[in-house]
Amino acid sequence: VALLDDKEREAALEHLPGWGYDEERRGLTKSFRFADFAAAFAFMGRVAVEAERRDHHPDWFNAWNRVEILLTTHRAKGVTGKDIELAAAIDRAA
Amino acid sequence: VALLDDKEREAALEHLPGWGYDEERRGLTKSFRFADFAAAFAFMGRVAVEAERRDHHPDWFNAWNRVEILLTTHRAKGVTGKDIELAAAIDRAA
Repeated sequence: VALLDDKEREAALEHLPGWGYDEERRGLTKSFRFADFAAAFAFMGRVAVEAERRDHHPDWFNAWNRVEILLTTHRAKGVTGKDIELAAAIDRAA
Repeated sequence: VALLDDKEREAALEHLPGWGYDEERRGLTKSFRFADFAAAFAFMGRVAVEAERRDHHPDWFNAWNRVEILLTTHRAKGVTGKDIELAAAIDRAA
């Protein structure tokens, strides 16, 4: 899987509202808030299924109703098409 | 819910192998590793049910097969009996 260059990544981000690029962690980040823990974890369950199906997994943090996601392709050391596709799937799951 | 004092917390930790106290975050921490993402997330599902049942929730991070947990009672600004009980339930779920 090939790294996206800056231009490709920025073009992709235009279609992913709320997602940003974290230079230090070389990944896409977005923070989600839900009504409560149950809603947040139900969202995480939907994302987990998408992640398994694609064999591409988020790095993520949850505290009660908040879920913070980082998407990066560890093998490629940065953002690839796999991250863009998973970001879109995560938005559909939210 | 009352904060545990240092002595009470240390006594409780003796019965919770692998758990430590993070002074800065004023909480109990433990890192778990599983065979893969599916096993890690299945564990998180079991913990989520325990957390909801107790209305006491972990702050946690997952990256593939790794789950890092912080237990603290935000309202009390530190470790209480609720954290000790949830830590024991988490160990049973692992």
